[in-house]
Amino acid sequence: VRTRLEVKLPPSAGRSYPIFVDAEPGAEARLADELVARAGAAATVGLLTDETVARLHRARFAGALSARGLTVVPVVVPDGESAKSMARAAEVAEAWTRGGLDRRAWVMALGGGVVGDLGGFVASILFRGVRCVQVPTTLLAQVDASVGGKTAVNLPSGKNLVGTFHQPELVYADVTTLATLAPRDRASGLAEVVKHGVIASPELLELVERRAEEACAGDPALLGELVARSCAIKAEVVAHDEREQAEGGRARLNFGHTVGHALESASQEGDAPLRHGEAVALGMLAAARVGAAHGCGDPTLEARLTSLLERLGLPTDLDRRLDASVLARVGVDKKRAGGRLLLVVVERVGQASLLAVEPARLGEILLAANRR
Amino acid sequence: VRTRLEVKLPPSAGRSYPIFVDAEPGAEARLADELVARAGAAATVGLLTDETVARLHRARFAGALSARGLTVVPVVVPDGESAKSMARAAEVAEAWTRGGLDRRAWVMALGGGVVGDLGGFVASILFRGVRCVQVPTTLLAQVDASVGGKTAVNLPSGKNLVGTFHQPELVYADVTTLATLAPRDRASGLAEVVKHGVIASPELLELVERRAEEACAGDPALLGELVARSCAIKAEVVAHDEREQAEGGRARLNFGHTVGHALESASQEGDAPLRHGEAVALGMLAAARVGAAHGCGDPTLEARLTSLLERLGLPTDLDRRLDASVLARVGVDKKRAGGRLLLVVVERVGQASLLAVEPARLGEILLAANRR
Repeated sequence: VRTRLEVKLPPSAGRSYPIFVDAEPGAEARLADELVARAGAAATVGLLTDETVARLHRARFAGALSARGLTVVPVVVPDGESAKSMARAAEVAEAWTRGGLDRRAWVMALGGGVVGDLGGFVASILFRGVRCVQVPTTLLAQVDASVGGKTAVNLPSGKNLVGTFHQPELVYADVTTLATLAPRDRASGLAEVVKHGVIASPELLELVERRAEEACAGDPALLGELVARSCAIKAEVVAHDEREQAEGGRARLNFGHTVGHALESASQEGDAPLRHGEAVALGMLAAARVGAAHGCGDPTLEARLTSLLERLGLPTDLDRRLDASVLARVGVDKKRAGGRLLLVVVERVGQASLLAVEPARLGEILLAANRR
Repeated sequence: VRTRLEVKLPPSAGRSYPIFVDAEPGAEARLADELVARAGAAATVGLLTDETVARLHRARFAGALSARGLTVVPVVVPDGESAKSMARAAEVAEAWTRGGLDRRAWVMALGGGVVGDLGGFVASILFRGVRCVQVPTTLLAQVDASVGGKTAVNLPSGKNLVGTFHQPELVYADVTTLATLAPRDRASGLAEVVKHGVIASPELLELVERRAEEACAGDPALLGELVARSCAIKAEVVAHDEREQAEGGRARLNFGHTVGHALESASQEGDAPLRHGEAVALGMLAAARVGAAHGCGDPTLEARLTSLLERLGLPTDLDRRLDASVLARVGVDKKRAGGRLLLVVVERVGQASLLAVEPARLGEILLAANRR
């Protein structure tokens, strides 16, 4: 599988950019060629990775860039979500400035969602914005985080509360990097694939349902197919609503994320932190239930999702995990608007929209099972 | 003097916005009315000031907002350039999030250039961007920093190396706040007025030359006139080149700033730190000299500027202040592009363009006087 998609941004956003999905060996050379074609062979590239990706993948990507004459200024951040902070962003910016990056430099974010969010954020603010290439190395980042131009770091009071919209110059998904993923991380990525199917593509959802076990096992051709289809959906949504301003536009991509973020953040304080995709899996079940309770959501969706998510090795024990303290966290989610929560509900698979819900009503619906 | 100007951004930037220049008492009430007309009376406003402005001006602005039903969440930062840091930006963002700001909130930056740069930066990244009102209270900020949408914080390795382009919804210059300025700060602001005249308006330069002593003394009607004319020039330049991408566009506004920034930054380490406008005054002399030495700049400009800047109480002792260590700092300025320095030179008053200069050549020209 070697595919090229276009994210066609509206004229007001200025430009479009390609997403490459490449499941064949040697992708680093093809990526380096694409970069030289855009940046020239004299460019300086700030290369961000975490420690794990630095060990597993950095040498071949940095080597391919150096071999073409580009100057590479590598910066490594610790693994994990804690790297997504303003303090770390300041350190990366300072390291790149001292390392010789200037306004014409490029940033390459090589890694999972954390590296993509942090690298994209620094690229968007360094010298008031330098160009950025996203090279996602996890399934989660390939199907979701690397496309769309959202960058973010966390504040003490919540995840992703600070960030920018900064579209990359290109996204290059090297599917062969997924071979080094732990099964649990692959499953986490599949949760976002399921989400894309649910909000926009019955065919994609059915493909995952048909081949759930092969996807879990990491079948490369299947993963390439799922990445390409997911990126196509995300690119289409982002193209119509870059800044998340249209009703039923980009906000649809938040399906499962309102309650999901609260579960994810609450779980960080316990001894069994949830992966992002695991939290989204649970959040999708919550959103399906709230939609059905309001009479506007597909009433069969929760059961259908529960069955699929179990086969993918994702958690479905929503009732056990929900309590008032988790729901209290929903209120600080940045999607709150004027006191109401904007929740994405799915009328039928492929058709999602926004529902304004009072936080108190959300609690009534979701905690009803616990009170019985 | 009560004037309304428009910054007409190109369609790709999405919208235009007004600049109000108001030299009559009671401006806080008129500003609050403008804000309510745009944000509604239920809006939450994060109000940023430094300690001095909190003491002198905050009560009447916050009071006017509260009287109309707006919720005000004040945050105070220490006086001075050290507040322009990533760490301080993170603190302000966290305080506003905890104070109840959400995606629909507004930020009001009430203060000088530091507060405007920091407040604008936080507004641009909080929830990936909230709306911002600039209320400049120094002459420097009124004639320059508050218009144009550039935001910035400093890194250890240099000033303004991190930032964004984030156009305000409106700029409101209350000229009565200038009565509380120290004469030295008024002079610093006049340096940027001179700059606007030099790069774009012979008439404005002649007006300052005609009434230099009255301007220094703080004549309110004259200051209102100078603010309005300076804003009109800056608005015109910014409208044509929001992102500083056109040759001879927005970059012209950097006249005096390349060497000026280096002098300013070097002086912070001594016991007599320069004000920004003082550094720009010296930087304009340097740029005039380099332009003349290259044969493309007005050969009479340095003498004409020296005479005017002296009358305004601004420093002109460029030769005494320049040495190799100052010039070494020019290289880390972010306007560096591929090894060359892009310097703004003035062919004749009102006509400025960019000149690419080798750093070594810059040193030869500027240090020649010292070697004689």
